[in-house]
Amino acid sequence: MQSFTVTGMTCGHCVRAVTEAITRLDAAATVRVDLAAGRVETDSRLPRAALAGAIAEEGYDVASA
Amino acid sequence: MQSFTVTGMTCGHCVRAVTEAITRLDAAATVRVDLAAGRVETDSRLPRAALAGAIAEEGYDVASA
Repeated sequence: MQSFTVTGMTCGHCVRAVTEAITRLDAAATVRVDLAAGRVETDSRLPRAALAGAIAEEGYDVASA
Repeated sequence: MQSFTVTGMTCGHCVRAVTEAITRLDAAATVRVDLAAGRVETDSRLPRAALAGAIAEEGYDVASA
């Protein structure tokens, strides 16, 4: 399981945008988004940088830690 | 010009959702959304209730006034 701290998600559309950013790269991935906490978790085994990059491309800030 | 006070729009996805809710009913309509102010303006001449209903169906609260 990989998890990311993501800033800027404000609504259900944002949840969907982030989820789809990951499943576009890894169709089999399960993604769970905690909107209030700004957390994104996925079972994808793709490189962390690829997943973080896909989230960032949607316009959200991904914590580097 | 018709304008609506809309609560719950938080991001660009919301702006798009509201805009598309109106243009789906009236493809020729121009829609302007002020996200910070929670205002939606359109030159559509469709009945106000139809436009307000379309916005509400997207999950936003439309002031009755």
